[in-house]
Amino acid sequence: MSELPPALEEAITFDERGLVLAVAQQHDSGEVLMVAWMNRESLAETLANGQVCYWSRSRGKLWRKGETSGQTQKLVDLLVDCDGDSLLLRVDQTGVACHTGRRSCFYQRVAEDGSLEETLAVETDPETLYGG
Amino acid sequence: MSELPPALEEAITFDERGLVLAVAQQHDSGEVLMVAWMNRESLAETLANGQVCYWSRSRGKLWRKGETSGQTQKLVDLLVDCDGDSLLLRVDQTGVACHTGRRSCFYQRVAEDGSLEETLAVETDPETLYGG
Repeated sequence: MSELPPALEEAITFDERGLVLAVAQQHDSGEVLMVAWMNRESLAETLANGQVCYWSRSRGKLWRKGETSGQTQKLVDLLVDCDGDSLLLRVDQTGVACHTGRRSCFYQRVAEDGSLEETLAVETDPETLYGG
Repeated sequence: MSELPPALEEAITFDERGLVLAVAQQHDSGEVLMVAWMNRESLAETLANGQVCYWSRSRGKLWRKGETSGQTQKLVDLLVDCDGDSLLLRVDQTGVACHTGRRSCFYQRVAEDGSLEETLAVETDPETLYGG
């Protein structure tokens, strides 16, 4: 289950925790949705199922994106960077990627005066996503 | 010099090494160019100059992107993610972002059979970028 294709195993440099960084991007619009981590098992599952699965560092377990919220990510393309320590997941995001109910986790923009302004509105109430 | 605006200092969670992850994206085309790390000093310099400066973990020093190669990144927008451990730099990339001479570091695509195929050609000979 956690076997990777040999070419991938060779290309990816997992860190001392056995993790590699993953950037998720909406495949057609180009929006950067989120950044998370994968281990061999989550990556193998993602490739097998076509549904993105990360590794949750805080929970110490597989994080099948959207399992609770329904906001899944379908894998469209997987790319590996030049030094093999980052992945780019081109995905088709159902609904919102962020647990705050926003499309992307990157919704805080640094303004000229150094303050933060919100660039994305909440599309779905987190209460709806995660139950009351 | 390494002072950050208070709102940013509050929003960003630097890790135990004092680093935060940075994803660079071409601001108009949406191409994800590279992933690197920043510390307070490199981020403060980036905000002050408008030219992207990372922290090189391998060299243990500031990495002024393009200082040697001329392939600089002008900062267009800086975004912070929901939990403050990743930044999205929307940039205007001069030339190529990758040290291999390709536009983006993400040029290896995982094919159906698990092999890797190159999706981007070398635009500039690395010899030209880094001297002979």
